[in-house]
Amino acid sequence: MALAIDANDVRAAAERIRPLARKTPVMTSAGFDSAAGTHAFFKCENLQRGGAFKIRGASNLILSLTPDAVARGIVAYSSGNHAQATAIAAQYVGAQATIVMPEDAPRSKMEATRARGARIVTYNRFTESREAIAAALLKDGGATLVPPFDHPMIMAGQGTAALELLGETGPLDAIVTPVGGGGLLSGCATIAKAIDPKIRVFGAEPEGANDTFLSMIAGERVAVPHPDTIADGLRAPKPGELTFPIVKSLVERVVLVSEDEIRAAVKFLLLRLKILVEPSGAVPAAAVLFHKLPPEIRSVGVVLSGGNVDFEDLAKY
Amino acid sequence: MALAIDANDVRAAAERIRPLARKTPVMTSAGFDSAAGTHAFFKCENLQRGGAFKIRGASNLILSLTPDAVARGIVAYSSGNHAQATAIAAQYVGAQATIVMPEDAPRSKMEATRARGARIVTYNRFTESREAIAAALLKDGGATLVPPFDHPMIMAGQGTAALELLGETGPLDAIVTPVGGGGLLSGCATIAKAIDPKIRVFGAEPEGANDTFLSMIAGERVAVPHPDTIADGLRAPKPGELTFPIVKSLVERVVLVSEDEIRAAVKFLLLRLKILVEPSGAVPAAAVLFHKLPPEIRSVGVVLSGGNVDFEDLAKY
Repeated sequence: MALAIDANDVRAAAERIRPLARKTPVMTSAGFDSAAGTHAFFKCENLQRGGAFKIRGASNLILSLTPDAVARGIVAYSSGNHAQATAIAAQYVGAQATIVMPEDAPRSKMEATRARGARIVTYNRFTESREAIAAALLKDGGATLVPPFDHPMIMAGQGTAALELLGETGPLDAIVTPVGGGGLLSGCATIAKAIDPKIRVFGAEPEGANDTFLSMIAGERVAVPHPDTIADGLRAPKPGELTFPIVKSLVERVVLVSEDEIRAAVKFLLLRLKILVEPSGAVPAAAVLFHKLPPEIRSVGVVLSGGNVDFEDLAKY
Repeated sequence: MALAIDANDVRAAAERIRPLARKTPVMTSAGFDSAAGTHAFFKCENLQRGGAFKIRGASNLILSLTPDAVARGIVAYSSGNHAQATAIAAQYVGAQATIVMPEDAPRSKMEATRARGARIVTYNRFTESREAIAAALLKDGGATLVPPFDHPMIMAGQGTAALELLGETGPLDAIVTPVGGGGLLSGCATIAKAIDPKIRVFGAEPEGANDTFLSMIAGERVAVPHPDTIADGLRAPKPGELTFPIVKSLVERVVLVSEDEIRAAVKFLLLRLKILVEPSGAVPAAAVLFHKLPPEIRSVGVVLSGGNVDFEDLAKY
């Protein structure tokens, strides 16, 4: 089966999203490198508009809609950052967005989404299906669904993070991103391998949300019904239908980190690099810091995917 | 009386410190601007080497020492960031540094200083004089004192922050920096006014450490014997002999912020801009956020002077 996207889709996305996505900085830290034993280049998507990489995919899809589709509105479901990104892009093109969010999503993310003019519909993530709720919303008025990961335009948009990163650093031994549903990882793997077929691509997952790790071992999509992790952006229960074939074909391995390792990485990035990265975004940094990648890797691009944290949660660490 | 430095000293410093000081990024935030009612350009010295602007002044002085002076070593006294900066620059030139620090200085700053090979001598800031302890240390071996602010090389070095900022933003209505002893403010005022005589220069102080505010009103240096503020970098009890004449002649006004306003600014910068700024560094951002500058100012450069915070302190906000 053909893969859902190729490098040209990512390059086209980079052009399309320019009005909405920032070219985020790449940071390095001698302190991190000496603790990790490798040279890390951090792609700071926590400093992205909306506080996460999600604006890349959402704006790639939304900026390609026809005026008619814009007029019919947009529906999305998300645990947080994708909601905010969809709301930003929808507001930019003048489309009404309706976002289906779990009722226990971080308060900061709900508020930021509402501030962008979106309507929010909440659901209980243990007893209800967000897909079903979104489907019901779509039936009414012909709105466009902006899914969080399993769509070629979303995947291609997310890949622009790696395109920018490698454009700035030059060749690296490896690149690592967090894995929720696999949108970011599949997009980044596609462009990274096209730029440099020798680059090694890794995904990083929390132990408590290891659906892609298990799927890689099984060779097919495996679900973890109730993922349990502080990395709230990585709680997708199963890899995507479109993302997984790319992950399977281009990604060397998914590595796992514990909750304590995630917390330690958030703390390290905050106190040493002076940047706030949310637990989901710190997962790949935790993987590098705690030596989960092969030791011969001397340089690694690390996508810090977001920075949206409730202050109360932060104080708990 | 002639002022201690001019713009050429700052320009020369910019060349001299290049091997040690980073050109830090300038950030903006639509959310901050809409809360503050003005367009703010943040000079992110929290992302500077050593976590603060202090490396600018310390390296300007230390990189100009003769090999003989380097061999005789360096002595400094500091509540924290200047200590770390002096240790970094001393290590770079191969000089032994001895740093006099208050025994209640943030632990993170002490550890970082020691990690750079410096010896630390502690004192009680309520009962002992750091100047006297440093003077005793200097008597022995002919070491060079690297004072925290009251020295032309230090002042000129700190001014490079404003030189870089204005080089990147172009003309601004105003610039605001924190004020401890006045090294940063005097250096920044000197170069800012030379680049653009119409720019308005402000200092920002905590209400509990308002020595420069009082000195500006009195027209002469006034001491606040025991400054009380969470902004530990701004607890210098009195403006400098060399810094104050510059502040008096070039700075329009020193504005005051409360402890709550400082905490709110730290929180805003952390949660919205995703960057960690220490209380001292957030003081000018607090001044802008809480409308302490004249309302007709439409664009303002804000020097976020440092980002070194103990995690335990952060959790307390």
